[in-house]
Amino acid sequence: MTNIKFFITTSLLTLSALSYSQERNNINVPDLDSLITLKCDFHIHTVFSDGLVWPTVRVQEAYSEGLDAISITEHIEYRPHKKDVVSDHNRSFDIAQKTADEYGVILIKGSEITRPMAPGHSNAIFIKDSNSLDKKKYMDAYKEAKKQNAFIFWNHPGWYSQQPDTTLWWPEHSELLEKGMMHGIEVANGVLLTPEAIDWCLENKLTMLGSSDIHQPINTDVDFAKGEHRSMTFVLAKERSEQGIREAFEARRTLVYYQDMLIGEEQYLRPFFEKSIEISEVSRDEKSILIRIENKTDIEFKFNKTDHDVSLEYFRDYHIKPNSRHDIRIRLKNGITGGDMNFDVTNLWIGNNKPLPFTIKL
Amino acid sequence: MTNIKFFITTSLLTLSALSYSQERNNINVPDLDSLITLKCDFHIHTVFSDGLVWPTVRVQEAYSEGLDAISITEHIEYRPHKKDVVSDHNRSFDIAQKTADEYGVILIKGSEITRPMAPGHSNAIFIKDSNSLDKKKYMDAYKEAKKQNAFIFWNHPGWYSQQPDTTLWWPEHSELLEKGMMHGIEVANGVLLTPEAIDWCLENKLTMLGSSDIHQPINTDVDFAKGEHRSMTFVLAKERSEQGIREAFEARRTLVYYQDMLIGEEQYLRPFFEKSIEISEVSRDEKSILIRIENKTDIEFKFNKTDHDVSLEYFRDYHIKPNSRHDIRIRLKNGITGGDMNFDVTNLWIGNNKPLPFTIKL
Amino acid sequence: MTNIKFFITTSLLTLSALSYSQERNNINVPDLDSLITLKCDFHIHTVFSDGLVWPTVRVQEAYSEGLDAISITEHIEYRPHKKDVVSDHNRSFDIAQKTADEYGVILIKGSEITRPMAPGHSNAIFIKDSNSLDKKKYMDAYKEAKKQNAFIFWNHPGWYSQQPDTTLWWPEHSELLEKGMMHGIEVANGVLLTPEAIDWCLENKLTMLGSSDIHQPINTDVDFAKGEHRSMTFVLAKERSEQGIREAFEARRTLVYYQDMLIGEEQYLRPFFEKSIEISEVSRDEKSILIRIENKTDIEFKFNKTDHDVSLEYFRDYHIKPNSRHDIRIRLKNGITGGDMNFDVTNLWIGNNKPLPFTIKL
Amino acid sequence: MTNIKFFITTSLLTLSALSYSQERNNINVPDLDSLITLKCDFHIHTVFSDGLVWPTVRVQEAYSEGLDAISITEHIEYRPHKKDVVSDHNRSFDIAQKTADEYGVILIKGSEITRPMAPGHSNAIFIKDSNSLDKKKYMDAYKEAKKQNAFIFWNHPGWYSQQPDTTLWWPEHSELLEKGMMHGIEVANGVLLTPEAIDWCLENKLTMLGSSDIHQPINTDVDFAKGEHRSMTFVLAKERSEQGIREAFEARRTLVYYQDMLIGEEQYLRPFFEKSIEISEVSRDEKSILIRIENKTDIEFKFNKTDHDVSLEYFRDYHIKPNSRHDIRIRLKNGITGGDMNFDVTNLWIGNNKPLPFTIKL
Repeated sequence: MTNIKFFITTSLLTLSALSYSQERNNINVPDLDSLITLKCDFHIHTVFSDGLVWPTVRVQEAYSEGLDAISITEHIEYRPHKKDVVSDHNRSFDIAQKTADEYGVILIKGSEITRPMAPGHSNAIFIKDSNSLDKKKYMDAYKEAKKQNAFIFWNHPGWYSQQPDTTLWWPEHSELLEKGMMHGIEVANGVLLTPEAIDWCLENKLTMLGSSDIHQPINTDVDFAKGEHRSMTFVLAKERSEQGIREAFEARRTLVYYQDMLIGEEQYLRPFFEKSIEISEVSRDEKSILIRIENKTDIEFKFNKTDHDVSLEYFRDYHIKPNSRHDIRIRLKNGITGGDMNFDVTNLWIGNNKPLPFTIKL
Repeated sequence: MTNIKFFITTSLLTLSALSYSQERNNINVPDLDSLITLKCDFHIHTVFSDGLVWPTVRVQEAYSEGLDAISITEHIEYRPHKKDVVSDHNRSFDIAQKTADEYGVILIKGSEITRPMAPGHSNAIFIKDSNSLDKKKYMDAYKEAKKQNAFIFWNHPGWYSQQPDTTLWWPEHSELLEKGMMHGIEVANGVLLTPEAIDWCLENKLTMLGSSDIHQPINTDVDFAKGEHRSMTFVLAKERSEQGIREAFEARRTLVYYQDMLIGEEQYLRPFFEKSIEISEVSRDEKSILIRIENKTDIEFKFNKTDHDVSLEYFRDYHIKPNSRHDIRIRLKNGITGGDMNFDVTNLWIGNNKPLPFTIKL
Repeated sequence: MTNIKFFITTSLLTLSALSYSQERNNINVPDLDSLITLKCDFHIHTVFSDGLVWPTVRVQEAYSEGLDAISITEHIEYRPHKKDVVSDHNRSFDIAQKTADEYGVILIKGSEITRPMAPGHSNAIFIKDSNSLDKKKYMDAYKEAKKQNAFIFWNHPGWYSQQPDTTLWWPEHSELLEKGMMHGIEVANGVLLTPEAIDWCLENKLTMLGSSDIHQPINTDVDFAKGEHRSMTFVLAKERSEQGIREAFEARRTLVYYQDMLIGEEQYLRPFFEKSIEISEVSRDEKSILIRIENKTDIEFKFNKTDHDVSLEYFRDYHIKPNSRHDIRIRLKNGITGGDMNFDVTNLWIGNNKPLPFTIKL
Repeated sequence: MTNIKFFITTSLLTLSALSYSQERNNINVPDLDSLITLKCDFHIHTVFSDGLVWPTVRVQEAYSEGLDAISITEHIEYRPHKKDVVSDHNRSFDIAQKTADEYGVILIKGSEITRPMAPGHSNAIFIKDSNSLDKKKYMDAYKEAKKQNAFIFWNHPGWYSQQPDTTLWWPEHSELLEKGMMHGIEVANGVLLTPEAIDWCLENKLTMLGSSDIHQPINTDVDFAKGEHRSMTFVLAKERSEQGIREAFEARRTLVYYQDMLIGEEQYLRPFFEKSIEISEVSRDEKSILIRIENKTDIEFKFNKTDHDVSLEYFRDYHIKPNSRHDIRIRLKNGITGGDMNFDVTNLWIGNNKPLPFTIKL
């Protein structure tokens, strides 16, 4: 990942918008055959709820970081600045939209239904009117969201403020699920991972999401100079459009990009990994084989050796650094000439604490 | 300077402010005998005029960067968000004050009188009521500021949007000066340097200031990971307080810290530089002298050799990097045993394009 | 940790050493009562064995990173450059010593006894003559080291090249231990952690060490801009001297600093942690307590909640970032007014995978 | 430019070269029509003269930084390590060649003829045998270089150690030039710029070069995390090969990349700049025109307004940041509808202190 810097020389200039500059980062990850990997964040706040920046800033941040799509999801029920920041629930979307068009960032309309546990918080996105979600009873808000054909996902199930010691699935969530009012879950929210949510998604055919839930300027929470990135969702879409994202959501074609981890269904994570690296044999003799692994992504892959023929000697743990090539020697003992080099990719999860197993045939 | 990172893990947490963290940078520069070097920025915007962040963010940024004092100076006459962000001209100060107290950042009340050239823009700080500055005629606004005992300084005189090709001093500025309504000038504003203002300050006994004029989140304009800093004013104060700053302003004890430059009156810049470095002789023989220069500040000093005895051979240009020690050899030719090692410190200016001359006696 | 940069403007200058500059980093960690925390690395290579830099570079790197002491430990039995780099086993120490004196870096003479498993590789440090360690049989080399009153430690026990699948303790190690020829073990070597070695040290009263085992220029392996550091040993010494280090070694007063972890005996790690943070109560009411934790070190501390009164609600996981202050709110439920806030500091280990437990009394 | 990190996990591994990893940076600059921009450094030292790293390190550094070609140019006459590092003048090339082949870095054989002023130091590259350059008289060394069909360039003419106060051209240089023994000059060497050399090259049809003259590990002198790069030569070649470089040298198709500057003949620098940016008109009305400038290179371009129709109001100074897009508004006064937007690109030099003039037609 290139060092992110979005410099906007506004000093002096804002009065008449005389000039403006913007750097664009590129998140290096592969597309799959016939699917584009869109980098997305569907949980974001501004001064119009309890965030601390103007809506346009969210678009500029997204553009600079190389995101394709965002949703600004103000709390319906929590607006601590409302004495100063008036206007209705649709306003921050409206303000951001012009900037989004200018930058080519897909802006999806959404809101956060913000209730005590259960059911806690949910985002409803792809909605038409946020104001209608402002209801007394939570179920009425969900009903309205469903009526607007929203895609609804449960936010940060493991948030200790609402689930102090254990991450529970409540009867309310079963009800929402049955009524078609829950379509996905935030597996990752900011620095919080809720591993239980991975298996809930797999069991209930729900879409996995990762979001920033950013309130501050993004640079405050994410140190780009150190290679950090916001928690986000990779949407494996047939096209780069709002419709493309919706279709991929329905089909659950997402990966969660959280810190150094990728989380998702094996059917998508395995080909994603295979497209991320190139493996070739450099040389071979009786004693050893030298293979080369090229990693052209911004993601580090962490290998941990699993069961194998002990005559095949190779690393125990190995880190494939981003954007680099690695030459790895495998020793051949006891006269063998090849075999299965088995390992887990420990930072790619296809279930709760379940790494992706991988084999290189030698 | 340590790498600045002010991480505030607000995701999830804002609703009930469950936890909060903040890193504090330290800007390494010397104090003078009996004077404390306060790092200050008196030109800042928020969503309450045409800025893009909430007022509290400005305090957190200031704390994190190691600033001692700031002034939030919303435009009186330009409030593009006013449809959404209501409230009066005093409001952003009031919002920021609680956070400022919490962080120990000195918050000085101010506003920007925002008029066409001439006289252009000025900041009035140390005021009591911003609302009263909202007048039809600019002179009435200045009068009101003076009435409130404001310290008034002319902002960004060289801004091409108001002075397209030449930086002019207009009759209006003479009038303001005569009437005691101009006490300082912004020599540096964001990335803009107005070198003419240096001599105007020297000639008219005005205080030199440097400001960020920040509208975006500060990290958007300043790349701390690359060692950048906002444009700011070093106030050489007798005490760390609002009163201390005011007294230093009256006495014109300021230095402007702009990019890699320091600008100020020689009577303050010279001792500041002398306190920044330590020079010692390491060894000496007939052929050469080895001296050591220790730089314990975050500022790089750039030396450029000036007239000297040619039998004394030393660098032509030399950069004293921040926080480092340098061993420099001076060759003695033609039987000399010492002499004057003369150079300019080219990034320290005591006038418009006038570097500080310096001599090391050998 | 300040960003490390050791710029030595040698271009052009080496011929006559006309000038030279060096930045010094400071590793912020506490001293204990009457004990100084020395930052040390006792496993380093240069071109005189299979390393790739000149010995003086090792001293400059150490100085720049803020190390107090190093040992250059060339392989006795492996010198792939010996066709080009001649001279005996003592030579790299001799070359480095002058630079070490100049920089005030303590240079301890050592060598690496480099044998197949068992017993594998060991460093013998505090020796007088490296050449005498060049013996046919490994036991003779260890005997000679002991004769020279060496401190001997087993290097990288978990190195898969010598222990392909399991980290074993061999009879040879028991023999060395019994004969007084093993005084410590490398728990961490470069990127390799050998967790089994922690318990071996605890059981056998051996000193724990962490080392870089650096062969390349240090910047090649360690990305200082990202806050990385080399694997090293904190020696808790009564004085900053070679003798001080030796005395601390005998008393096993060391901590291993590996990636984001500290590993050591609880009797030293607990007070080290207590000196690293300051805990204070900010405010308190019936519903909650607000505490402040200040971390003045360069080390991040990772808290993980353990068994506690469920009426005391606080974080599940919390990261105390380096050089920052954290305000953390604890909720009081069911009428309680205080209690024990229990957590593990998961990146501080007092045994193999055994985090330091900690309690804050509220 | 991506953040450079060349991590080579040699700890433990060097003994049997079990694995090895390398990151590759890409220097983003344009190719010209039918010419490839090769990034090259033809002035480098190792332990085989007065450098401080092993020759293979120089290849790895070059690969990691994204260089295409290097020359290791040990001093013939200055070998301070020769007591320890034996072997002849050809040896460091031979050692580096295998690694160069492995990495696809073009390694051109060369040596530095290292004499007092005049004529000072010169590099002879594309030679066959370095040993033959070891002559008593400097002219014999140059003759031998010429006999080997070397490309010879004068190094660091402005080095104060040999030209303490003024950069002079000596009769010896005229003689070398007349005899066909000087084909280029180092305009930039490490941190040293010799601006006089630019005009000497233009007048005498000599090739301009930029070199690192690196002695230390490259990371010691160049802070990649801050976006720095080594001084280098861009060779505009018909093919990526040793022959391609030689042909471009003969035709003087080079640009010097020094700090934030590019220096070269206008016939190459102008199209290079034109290929670096894309200019388009975004919108236009009676009062103003909005243009967009995209900079897809790693180089910042600095504009300074020059003579123009004062009815056309635009920036005075403007910095086009690397890898970014800039929207710039030009105001139309007095009823004009367009005109010439004139500026210098102040960091692109086509002569000594002579910036490239540029016009955008509106």
